[in-house]
Amino acid sequence: MDIQKTMREKAEAAKRASRALAILPTGVKNEALRAMADALEKRAELVLEANAQDLEEARAKGLKRSYLDRLMLNEGRIRQMAEGLRQTAALPDPICQGDYSTIRPNGLEIRRVRVPLGVIGIIYEARPNVTADAAGLCLKAGNAVLLRGGSEAIRSNTAISSLLMKAAYKAGIPEGALQFVEFTDREAVDAMTHMTGLLDVIIPRGGAGLIHHIVENSSVPVIETGTGVCHTFVDETADFDMAVKIAVNAKTSHPSVCNAMETLLVHAAIAEDFLPQLARAMEEKHVELRGDARAREICPEMREATEEDWSTEYGDLILSVRVVPDLAAAIAHINKYNTGHSETIVTENLESAHRFQKEVDAAAVYVNASTRFTDGFEFGFGAEIGISTQKLHARGPMGLEALTSTKYLIYGEGQVR
Amino acid sequence: MDIQKTMREKAEAAKRASRALAILPTGVKNEALRAMADALEKRAELVLEANAQDLEEARAKGLKRSYLDRLMLNEGRIRQMAEGLRQTAALPDPICQGDYSTIRPNGLEIRRVRVPLGVIGIIYEARPNVTADAAGLCLKAGNAVLLRGGSEAIRSNTAISSLLMKAAYKAGIPEGALQFVEFTDREAVDAMTHMTGLLDVIIPRGGAGLIHHIVENSSVPVIETGTGVCHTFVDETADFDMAVKIAVNAKTSHPSVCNAMETLLVHAAIAEDFLPQLARAMEEKHVELRGDARAREICPEMREATEEDWSTEYGDLILSVRVVPDLAAAIAHINKYNTGHSETIVTENLESAHRFQKEVDAAAVYVNASTRFTDGFEFGFGAEIGISTQKLHARGPMGLEALTSTKYLIYGEGQVR
Repeated sequence: MDIQKTMREKAEAAKRASRALAILPTGVKNEALRAMADALEKRAELVLEANAQDLEEARAKGLKRSYLDRLMLNEGRIRQMAEGLRQTAALPDPICQGDYSTIRPNGLEIRRVRVPLGVIGIIYEARPNVTADAAGLCLKAGNAVLLRGGSEAIRSNTAISSLLMKAAYKAGIPEGALQFVEFTDREAVDAMTHMTGLLDVIIPRGGAGLIHHIVENSSVPVIETGTGVCHTFVDETADFDMAVKIAVNAKTSHPSVCNAMETLLVHAAIAEDFLPQLARAMEEKHVELRGDARAREICPEMREATEEDWSTEYGDLILSVRVVPDLAAAIAHINKYNTGHSETIVTENLESAHRFQKEVDAAAVYVNASTRFTDGFEFGFGAEIGISTQKLHARGPMGLEALTSTKYLIYGEGQVR
Repeated sequence: MDIQKTMREKAEAAKRASRALAILPTGVKNEALRAMADALEKRAELVLEANAQDLEEARAKGLKRSYLDRLMLNEGRIRQMAEGLRQTAALPDPICQGDYSTIRPNGLEIRRVRVPLGVIGIIYEARPNVTADAAGLCLKAGNAVLLRGGSEAIRSNTAISSLLMKAAYKAGIPEGALQFVEFTDREAVDAMTHMTGLLDVIIPRGGAGLIHHIVENSSVPVIETGTGVCHTFVDETADFDMAVKIAVNAKTSHPSVCNAMETLLVHAAIAEDFLPQLARAMEEKHVELRGDARAREICPEMREATEEDWSTEYGDLILSVRVVPDLAAAIAHINKYNTGHSETIVTENLESAHRFQKEVDAAAVYVNASTRFTDGFEFGFGAEIGISTQKLHARGPMGLEALTSTKYLIYGEGQVR
């Protein structure tokens, strides 16, 4: 089969459908999302069967446990996907909301309203739930979507997307608005990244390798998501118990996600008192610590951290630890090594808190809270398509609004310039 | 000289400066912009001298008149640049304005505030005024800027940027925040488009060739600007006099700019009555008309329009004309051939007006007004860095807000997840 040609046909069909979808009434979109949820639950056995085959193959390939866990579906996870679709249906429709309005001295009436982006490409890896989540969010915001999942989940994704498409089209979504790419070759990804004029944006979701490849090669605009080298800075005035609680939560509550902490920085003035308490708490949670020279003087059981450690997203129970002379050094370390995701300071000093928030360059900058809160649901958006680590278009957790653009509507009475 | 190395050093210096610039008080930025304006006016003779040399070389190369006009500076144009900087100084500072704020059930206080993008690359062609305009807007929004102008204006741009840098740094802008690229080779452009991690965005301003090259090759995010294949649709119920007035204005008031009209569509029901009136008015303004078969039946003096005409930005006194059976056909033609810039309908029918605005896919969709109004000043933004024809980040005229990103600031009291 000619991959390039088939891919282009899919994108063209999506683009055609996007015109009608852009002006589809909210009620039809919501009804379709609920029908998609029902279809997933009613035909769960089809999805589970496909998933069992994916899992079997992945096990035979010797893929590691964390990977298998991301790939695995069960009735509970399918119910979660369905619930996600129903929650998206219940959210306010972002389309046609206005956010700027003026009448100019010459009488022109100018309004800016939200419109869909058009056609969105989603390129993702192991998690089959992305198929349902992304489809629901894109459709709700009036966008057609081209979904390209990873090869390991191909059977699960195919089963899910077939059910979703059938239900969506039956409920009035324009035919072609939901496209699933069955090609698992890299060629399909490369075809998508060069569909300027057909795709309006590509959102990659997955590991650093995938995201880097797409950012470097795409001529379609990309929203970079995901990689998180997040820091906790324990300031001179920190409440030790609070600092330990926040650090343990940020590192261990879900080590594989992007808002988990990778490096802890501690103010030199308290390092000697604080680090032993931290080390004990981390040890209880089986976290391997890697320290700089000063940290290892205080806690000799730590391994030595190398330069590479400071920029590594472990995604695992490993934490690098560095003693810094002051707040300025902490901020400088973070701005050098972070990925622009989430950073937190634990402090009782208002000035330090304020300066940290002002000078640290990241999507989310916390005072006295765990970085684990960087998430569309926790931020009150009701949904999330990913977490942007770039500065253009959207930064931080992306809800429905991030899947829209704007349009100026101008009324005149014959004005010329 | 090693272009790659020097370019990287400039970008690194800009990035370092951007940290301090991001938190510089508004007063210092405004004072610097006014000092830059004063410097331009006081040392105008240096700029004019350099410009005279550029013009001489351009004439010797036989460049055409419209090009020479864009390149040419005189005292009035230098005063305009200075006034532009003073107006930018007078605009509200977009930085730290908040646009989202919530207290979550767990007590977390979440605010979203505007922050600078960081380092902006501007790649432009003949107009030396872009050097001052772009520098002023980028600095006001707290961004460092790397300016790379065209080879034909190299002496003018060098003179302007030296004056601006000296004045800016003396007034407290962090050293390095304003960088001018003296290399006119394509290699300098290609170096910029691959500075991921140093440049946060590239905004190209110039012809379709330059913009296309950058969009296709850049791994740094790009905001596409400029190309405008704009349409006027004269509906069945249009007031003929108004339609002619709007069409003549949209075509002839400034044919070389991107918001000028390139194609006129007319409803079949009125084509026979309307087109002769239009043709007379356009003839008076020396506009060459190129019609489809039906238009040429009515006005046989028109040349024949080819398929290529429908997607051509003439930038000149040429207009393509097509007779369409109805509103739907007009919308379909526009959505097929436009560049997402500006479109207008002339109509007395409310339903047609509404449907046109809803279904046409463009940054600015007008009813009964000339497309020439698509402009940051006309829209009330007080300034303009360009007109985005893409949907991501910013669409339509871009003012200061388009040069910013956002950051979430979160206050807690020890919350963990």
